[in-house]
Amino acid sequence: AGDPEAGKGKISACAACHGTDGMGTAPIYPNLAGQSAAYLESSMKAYREGQRGGGMSALMTPQAQGLSDEDIADIAAYYASLQP
Amino acid sequence: AGDPEAGKGKISACAACHGTDGMGTAPIYPNLAGQSAAYLESSMKAYREGQRGGGMSALMTPQAQGLSDEDIADIAAYYASLQP
Repeated sequence: AGDPEAGKGKISACAACHGTDGMGTAPIYPNLAGQSAAYLESSMKAYREGQRGGGMSALMTPQAQGLSDEDIADIAAYYASLQP
Repeated sequence: AGDPEAGKGKISACAACHGTDGMGTAPIYPNLAGQSAAYLESSMKAYREGQRGGGMSALMTPQAQGLSDEDIADIAAYYASLQP
């Protein structure tokens, strides 16, 4: 399982759209706060593998491609730990 | 914009995984409560058009393909109206 404290140090790019508090900074950006780590990991991996198109995938795919499995687990654990 | 009251009558399939309260019924199913309608519409349309793969898309694509633009707007308005 990911480490939310480590994840907190890896979200500088994520936070531009999803906030440090996990709340989207514009309507098209989903809130991540309180989503399960399992779902957040699944989403990031689908973007990273190029499976998840449409929506904001042109932005998310390259972001996710810079992340290791451990990064993804840590970031997911961080956002899952927050209250919406 | 969608009609949340109309949407409430269209979520019987959605609710099996996302709840009538918009909270996922298992960790792999995302919470929808309080997401913006703009994001929810974008997601459902990406599934419907077959753009969004990976994750639970094998389940979501056929579900979304049964929805009109109006259905999607109404369902998005309903889940956006809920508090997580």
